[in-house]
Amino acid sequence: MSEAAQTLDGWYVLHDLRSIDWEKWNAASASEQEAATKDLLKLVAEWQAVENDKQGSYAVYSVVGQKADLIFMHLRENLQLLNEIENAFNKSAFGRFTRKEYSYVSVVELSSYLAAPGVDPMQVPEIAARLKPILPKSSHICFYPMNKKRELQDNWYMLSMDDRKAMMRSHGMIGRSYAGKVKQIISGSVGLDDWEWGVTLFSDDALQFKKLVYEMRFDEVSARFGEFGSFYVGNLLTNDAITELLK
Amino acid sequence: MSEAAQTLDGWYVLHDLRSIDWEKWNAASASEQEAATKDLLKLVAEWQAVENDKQGSYAVYSVVGQKADLIFMHLRENLQLLNEIENAFNKSAFGRFTRKEYSYVSVVELSSYLAAPGVDPMQVPEIAARLKPILPKSSHICFYPMNKKRELQDNWYMLSMDDRKAMMRSHGMIGRSYAGKVKQIISGSVGLDDWEWGVTLFSDDALQFKKLVYEMRFDEVSARFGEFGSFYVGNLLTNDAITELLK
Amino acid sequence: MSEAAQTLDGWYVLHDLRSIDWEKWNAASASEQEAATKDLLKLVAEWQAVENDKQGSYAVYSVVGQKADLIFMHLRENLQLLNEIENAFNKSAFGRFTRKEYSYVSVVELSSYLAAPGVDPMQVPEIAARLKPILPKSSHICFYPMNKKRELQDNWYMLSMDDRKAMMRSHGMIGRSYAGKVKQIISGSVGLDDWEWGVTLFSDDALQFKKLVYEMRFDEVSARFGEFGSFYVGNLLTNDAITELLK
Amino acid sequence: MSEAAQTLDGWYVLHDLRSIDWEKWNAASASEQEAATKDLLKLVAEWQAVENDKQGSYAVYSVVGQKADLIFMHLRENLQLLNEIENAFNKSAFGRFTRKEYSYVSVVELSSYLAAPGVDPMQVPEIAARLKPILPKSSHICFYPMNKKRELQDNWYMLSMDDRKAMMRSHGMIGRSYAGKVKQIISGSVGLDDWEWGVTLFSDDALQFKKLVYEMRFDEVSARFGEFGSFYVGNLLTNDAITELLK
Amino acid sequence: MSEAAQTLDGWYVLHDLRSIDWEKWNAASASEQEAATKDLLKLVAEWQAVENDKQGSYAVYSVVGQKADLIFMHLRENLQLLNEIENAFNKSAFGRFTRKEYSYVSVVELSSYLAAPGVDPMQVPEIAARLKPILPKSSHICFYPMNKKRELQDNWYMLSMDDRKAMMRSHGMIGRSYAGKVKQIISGSVGLDDWEWGVTLFSDDALQFKKLVYEMRFDEVSARFGEFGSFYVGNLLTNDAITELLK
Repeated sequence: MSEAAQTLDGWYVLHDLRSIDWEKWNAASASEQEAATKDLLKLVAEWQAVENDKQGSYAVYSVVGQKADLIFMHLRENLQLLNEIENAFNKSAFGRFTRKEYSYVSVVELSSYLAAPGVDPMQVPEIAARLKPILPKSSHICFYPMNKKRELQDNWYMLSMDDRKAMMRSHGMIGRSYAGKVKQIISGSVGLDDWEWGVTLFSDDALQFKKLVYEMRFDEVSARFGEFGSFYVGNLLTNDAITELLK
Repeated sequence: MSEAAQTLDGWYVLHDLRSIDWEKWNAASASEQEAATKDLLKLVAEWQAVENDKQGSYAVYSVVGQKADLIFMHLRENLQLLNEIENAFNKSAFGRFTRKEYSYVSVVELSSYLAAPGVDPMQVPEIAARLKPILPKSSHICFYPMNKKRELQDNWYMLSMDDRKAMMRSHGMIGRSYAGKVKQIISGSVGLDDWEWGVTLFSDDALQFKKLVYEMRFDEVSARFGEFGSFYVGNLLTNDAITELLK
Repeated sequence: MSEAAQTLDGWYVLHDLRSIDWEKWNAASASEQEAATKDLLKLVAEWQAVENDKQGSYAVYSVVGQKADLIFMHLRENLQLLNEIENAFNKSAFGRFTRKEYSYVSVVELSSYLAAPGVDPMQVPEIAARLKPILPKSSHICFYPMNKKRELQDNWYMLSMDDRKAMMRSHGMIGRSYAGKVKQIISGSVGLDDWEWGVTLFSDDALQFKKLVYEMRFDEVSARFGEFGSFYVGNLLTNDAITELLK
Repeated sequence: MSEAAQTLDGWYVLHDLRSIDWEKWNAASASEQEAATKDLLKLVAEWQAVENDKQGSYAVYSVVGQKADLIFMHLRENLQLLNEIENAFNKSAFGRFTRKEYSYVSVVELSSYLAAPGVDPMQVPEIAARLKPILPKSSHICFYPMNKKRELQDNWYMLSMDDRKAMMRSHGMIGRSYAGKVKQIISGSVGLDDWEWGVTLFSDDALQFKKLVYEMRFDEVSARFGEFGSFYVGNLLTNDAITELLK
Repeated sequence: MSEAAQTLDGWYVLHDLRSIDWEKWNAASASEQEAATKDLLKLVAEWQAVENDKQGSYAVYSVVGQKADLIFMHLRENLQLLNEIENAFNKSAFGRFTRKEYSYVSVVELSSYLAAPGVDPMQVPEIAARLKPILPKSSHICFYPMNKKRELQDNWYMLSMDDRKAMMRSHGMIGRSYAGKVKQIISGSVGLDDWEWGVTLFSDDALQFKKLVYEMRFDEVSARFGEFGSFYVGNLLTNDAITELLK
């Protein structure tokens, strides 16, 4: 039996991807469209208020391509609060112009692989802040879920703690070389959703997503053990951009 | 030919996951909505009456994320009774506002791997009770189906009984270390549904689901032999919460 | 090149799984519902008449869970007759309240692995009868399709005839130990549908499906070489039960 | 780098599988149904005229089971002509009562594995005829797509030309032993569709499909290297049978 | 840790595959159809104007078979511009007669495997031009996404740079032997979409797609390491062809 890695857990996370029912939208009257847009902006304002109170955070992005039209990302203290956000959206005037495309439930997570020995990570203020992060309003988002493989001799969970720690350290060094260019939020979803982790990247230059993920693919952690779900990439939707999109 | 494990079998189980057709719900009149809500609460009252009579048990939870809106979990003496519950739901005023998302058919099961030698497990009252359990009304539920792998050298069913017993013992010790925090219901579904087992966890702290499943993943039984389906996680729906959700 | 197994082939088989469109059903008038129910019972009577003439056989079962509501199983001399049954159903008053869920096309099959040497199996009356079986009206049905694996060193079709024969003999002994409790119909579908075989089990005790399939899973034929599709389990629908279901 | 096999390429092929929207069909008036049937028969007559001119060929079959109701198979000189057939069908009075189920794009292909050494196969009139075949009007059709596996040590494309040639020769001998019973059309689809080949079989006895494909499965080419998609099997639809089906 | 390959990145690419809702189209009035066609041609004219300004490029092709009816391929400087194209299409009079089928997001990419040593590839004008290509108006298109495999001993990302370079060189030689017959656009999508690369081929002879991809399949890079998604093949849609299609 291999020694389990310890995790530090922060806010619960919901990625909520929706498409716009364009047929219905195009058929709606101008005043219905206006009311729906206003209703969406009201929800955004509520999410912003929660973020201002440091009780959670949120992000609204478009999606490029047909997988969805919109990514809503929400961070909250517990699962009930995430459920309430969903229900409010489903009952809203805007919600009825959307269709469900994909969602992901996870918890902001820091692994102890990188911890300095002899230090209680919860006493490090920077770590506590990273567990309840305020999401940046970068120009672009990239979200994908992933697993560590368990396939015959490529079985991450059968490796010794030392081997895993060494590989994660080298992996982390690539991530750190993108500091200032890409912000990463890692959230754990074992026991909560269908993959083991969700990765959310933010950057003002979408090409950095490609460079970062490609460089990591040659790293043993990803090369031998990484299994990836769908990649969703999109553009920031400010209130003005929402209004423009729905005009 | 490897020696087959023996199982003790209890109540039949139906996990019935539904989404609410929000478009239809939002378009319904207030009195239609009220009638539908009342009808759902009447079904819940019937399920509660069966539970009070110890003829079965039930649970009603919401689902976080888009996989479904509602989990109904039912335990009964036989498959006909489960079919009747489905039919009544499909004909109900509330049922017509829902869509099928996923279901799972299984039987509450205890394996003999952990049995003390020389003891007839059916004579142990605690075991008999665990085969016909009354589901707890914890704040959170987690449900997922799983298989034991049969892939080349990682083939659970080609192992000797002794090897399987030793691994299951170590596996069970992790589960027991969560006693008081997480309640587990294991149900077997070989020959009944598409995976070999269903696992249903109940807890007042959803983070315990993540901790438990993640810790087990490093255990050889899960690391080498565990194959997992979708994970569904949700919040308890009391009658008040149902009324609130459908307001 | 490995020696191919010989098969004896009987009636063609169609498993036709449908769900009821409850939204449409609930919206229909009482007289439309009555006419549809009567039409279904008329089809059942026609199928029964064919069975009485020993020109085929049939079974009607409900399905527990969301995979479907109804299993219709039909045995006939040729594929045209199966196509006619489908077309009649699609044009019937009841058919328009249903949706397609899954179907399976195969041929009742006996393999020669178990044949006594020097005997022409077609001269054994019991064997001829098993190729054109009248389906039992047991309380429960279980249907699943399956393959023999062809994966690197676990490749059934690269084994010698002797190895396959020895494994099938041990496999068959498990099946025979359930005689009187579970009736099995094996049908071959290589070249006809997406899996290599369909297995249909009948029993008055649904728990026997679980026990039989689980015990077989530890047998080398299943453990190393069995690949399984979806499992469908259900309850017998007599004419009275059909009327009750559609009330 | 392994030596690539050479192929001889003939007509382009479109398999176009459709289901009938029975709900819509049953709701149509008798005169709408008649007009739609007449329109379909007019398309068939056009396809027959092209076949009479040896500018292409076609086949119309029903499908047994729920995968589709109809297989239309078309052979033409180029992809534009296939596109025109699709567009005409989509705009036809009958087309609007159908739904897309599956399609396959390929090119009639003969491989050079079996060629006699020192012979230019294009000079053999029988070969030229096989590249632009007139489809038989047999009672039954069987269609399935397939790949040659590329999985670790079972990698067809890493074998030497000699090994591939030897295996294909033994494989071809099975096929030839069904001459007169089953007619095979092999079409290549590398670079054109999702599998590497399409196999279309015609026979007056559907059981021969099962016997042929099962016997081949024990041949090393199929046993180790064959990967198969869905199998579609059906009955010939003469004009009378079309009229009967749509009555 | 293996040395990562360097890439040169050019325009962002969106492949946008749509099907026509023929039911809706056939039900529309002649003037609605005319307005929709005119609106589509107006979009095409806008795309052409951008191409004339060398600010991007585009292609419009039909698709043979049921996977889609239309491929729109767009190249632009950034993701926002691609999103704007999508939104304009979704709001257009023609857009509402279409359904989403598949999309792909990537970046035109040249790998450094083939670079001459000691040369800065960005200083080579031909390379700069290939990163922002004007798409040819060939008769046929072929699009497919692909991965390099990471499966046990067939793991591309665990190979040394030298091994990868040698294999890519031999691979590139096949491609070059089709110069003048097939034009290839390779676009990278690691971190942007679900596969690692998109391959778009253009040719006046569709058979060249089959020959090229089949020949490459015997090359070690493809044979051992290539994993392929769906293949989409189609015919050029000039403005006249669009008008003809929508008549």
